[in-house]
Amino acid sequence: MNRIRMVFSGSGGQGVITAAIILAEAAVIYEGMNATQSQSYGAAARGGATRSDIIISDGEINFPEVTQPNILVCLTQEAYTTYSPIIRPGGTLLTDNRFVQTTRKVDAKQIELPMYETVMEKIGKPVVFNICVLGALIGLTEILKPESVMAAVADRVPKDFLTMNNRAFDLGLVLGAQYRR
Amino acid sequence: MNRIRMVFSGSGGQGVITAAIILAEAAVIYEGMNATQSQSYGAAARGGATRSDIIISDGEINFPEVTQPNILVCLTQEAYTTYSPIIRPGGTLLTDNRFVQTTRKVDAKQIELPMYETVMEKIGKPVVFNICVLGALIGLTEILKPESVMAAVADRVPKDFLTMNNRAFDLGLVLGAQYRR
Repeated sequence: MNRIRMVFSGSGGQGVITAAIILAEAAVIYEGMNATQSQSYGAAARGGATRSDIIISDGEINFPEVTQPNILVCLTQEAYTTYSPIIRPGGTLLTDNRFVQTTRKVDAKQIELPMYETVMEKIGKPVVFNICVLGALIGLTEILKPESVMAAVADRVPKDFLTMNNRAFDLGLVLGAQYRR
Repeated sequence: MNRIRMVFSGSGGQGVITAAIILAEAAVIYEGMNATQSQSYGAAARGGATRSDIIISDGEINFPEVTQPNILVCLTQEAYTTYSPIIRPGGTLLTDNRFVQTTRKVDAKQIELPMYETVMEKIGKPVVFNICVLGALIGLTEILKPESVMAAVADRVPKDFLTMNNRAFDLGLVLGAQYRR
C-alpha cells in the first residue's frame, strides 16, 4: 500500500489550507485515491501559524493527523522552527528561500526554492504563491500528475483567474523538477 | 469539559469547507478554545458530496474525526440521506428547505430553515449562502458569539465583500434565533 503523509505549514494568508484542500481533492477526484486533510488549531493558530495535514493513500486512512510527514513544506521561519524536527527520516523538506533560512541539519532531502520571488517577478501577484508551491511540490516529488492538480485548481478558482493560476503552477513545476532525483 | 462535535455536509461549491474553517478559526482565535477541522475524502467526494468535521473544545482534542455529531448541517438531499443517521441522540439537525426534504424521524431537534431562499431574495448572490448558514447555526445554538464568527469571516473575505457577508450572516442569525430554545 502506498501512503504519503504531508504537512503544509506557514502563516495565515499564504493559502496553506487551500493548497492542502486542492491537493487532497486532486488525489481523490482525479486519481481515484483516498485522502484526508485536516487542521488542528491550538496555541500556534493564535500566534498566526497555520498547519495543515494531508494524507493520500490507495488504502483506507484511519487517522487523519500526521505525526511524521514524508513531505514537509514550511513557508515561514516560525513554521520551519516548529515543524522541521518532525520530518520522517529520508523525507523531503521544501522551504521558500524568501521566508525561511534553514539553520539546522535534518535527516531528509532539504530543498530551498525561490517560489515567492519567482511568482512576484513573473506574475506580480502574491495570491498565487500557494499554487506555485503546489507546482514545485509536484515537480519535485511526482506524487500526483500535474494535470490532476491543475484540474482540482480549476474546480476551485474563478474562471478569470485560471490562466494566472496555471502560470503560477507551471513556474513551480519547473523549479521543483530541477531537484527531482 | 465542553466539547461540541459538528458535521457540515453538502455539495462542492456550497462553501461547506470554508464555513467549517471559519467556525474553527473563530473558536480558536476569538474565543480561546481548541478546535480541529477535517475532511475525509472517499467515494462520496467523487460523487460531488462534501463533508467537513469540526470539533470545538475547551480541552485537548485527540481525534479530529466526528462519529456522532451534536450538530449536523445538511445542505443537499444526498448529504441528508447519507449523514442524518449518524446524529447524536438529542442533537441538532439543521437543513435548508430549498435543498432538503426531510423524510425521516431522527432523535434530534430538526430545524428546516429557508436560508438559501432568504439569501437569494435579500442579497441575490448564492456565494454568501454558506455565511448565512453559519449565522443560522449561531442564532440557533449560541455555540460561539456572533461577533467572534464575524471577525473570522472578516479575516478571510476580501474587504469589498465584507458588507455583503455581514448581511448574509445577520439574515441567518435572525432565522436561527427564532428556533432557539
